[in-house]
Amino acid sequence: MTISELADRAALPIATVKYYLRSGVLPGGHATSATRATYDESHLQRLRLIRALVTVGRLRLATVRDIMTAVDDPSRTTHEALGAAHYPPVAGAPEAEPTAVARVDELMVRLGWRVDPQSGDRRVLAGALGASAELGYPVDDEVLEAYAQAAFDVALVDVSLLPGDNRAGAVEMAVIGTVLREPVLVSLRRLAQEHVSAGRFG
Amino acid sequence: MTISELADRAALPIATVKYYLRSGVLPGGHATSATRATYDESHLQRLRLIRALVTVGRLRLATVRDIMTAVDDPSRTTHEALGAAHYPPVAGAPEAEPTAVARVDELMVRLGWRVDPQSGDRRVLAGALGASAELGYPVDDEVLEAYAQAAFDVALVDVSLLPGDNRAGAVEMAVIGTVLREPVLVSLRRLAQEHVSAGRFG
Repeated sequence: MTISELADRAALPIATVKYYLRSGVLPGGHATSATRATYDESHLQRLRLIRALVTVGRLRLATVRDIMTAVDDPSRTTHEALGAAHYPPVAGAPEAEPTAVARVDELMVRLGWRVDPQSGDRRVLAGALGASAELGYPVDDEVLEAYAQAAFDVALVDVSLLPGDNRAGAVEMAVIGTVLREPVLVSLRRLAQEHVSAGRFG
Repeated sequence: MTISELADRAALPIATVKYYLRSGVLPGGHATSATRATYDESHLQRLRLIRALVTVGRLRLATVRDIMTAVDDPSRTTHEALGAAHYPPVAGAPEAEPTAVARVDELMVRLGWRVDPQSGDRRVLAGALGASAELGYPVDDEVLEAYAQAAFDVALVDVSLLPGDNRAGAVEMAVIGTVLREPVLVSLRRLAQEHVSAGRFG
């Protein structure tokens, strides 16, 4: 399809599609002449993904490009590409301090979770634990482990949704699922709090 | 204690404490003369809470004030004040459309959750479900219910942490717990995804 057909199907202005091409976040089309190129379903799919990350995930385009670069790198295994897909930092994460980082390291060992030592989410978790403690509301081990169990239950569902036979598809679904279903989990937690709280205080 | 002692114990500049007083988010002290007032532990506690909401929760001061007004209103029951405490909107939530709103209503009925029809979190959840569907990645009922179960497990822990005999304390802990432990859950989900994904693709 032409670039205007692509823009049309993605419900985006052509100028936006051109901007994504220029910034490298959308791969170029198949050149048919010096000034023309055609695009296929993979471009449409990628546009959808970019849009999800930018609008729902509120990621900056530079962050999206970093994720896409990792995803597209053929030297990475599916698992490594998925690691990059999980990398997008949680907005508003405070800086972590050493005791909290050590606590997260210990937790990962105790739970037996295989997680990259460089994973950004370790720092996010350590930052959140450190901030709670500093404000006088430390998260104790029992609470932390209950949270980890719930997170694990959700992750089992998340990973089961990924196709096993299609690397690009698996990575894309992982990115989409991580970003799009985060507000689902967060809002369900608040609704559940209201319900449980009604039983106790209502 | 004096305002400068209060600022000192809260590790905040006096100017910030005065700003919180002027904007009504921090209740005034006990006047000892026309130009002097003393402050007690409740003021220090409130400052801590404001700081958590503003720095970790990234809430605007106007939102914090609305929460505090609801929390301080003696005509509300503990449960109602807790409802207001759970209200802070999730950052970046998209607008909800009617089908998604109806789906959330049905889910609440099916789960038997007692949740205010006006709860902001219903809209947040509907918005997240609507955005996923619109982007071509609908969240099916089975996935949604697995998420709801995990959210419920976490909420049981959250509510069990609230003191039963102290309304102000319960509301404050609810606000703190909702905001401070959100990044804990979100980052644990991502770490768990990486671990589960390692088992399947690593």
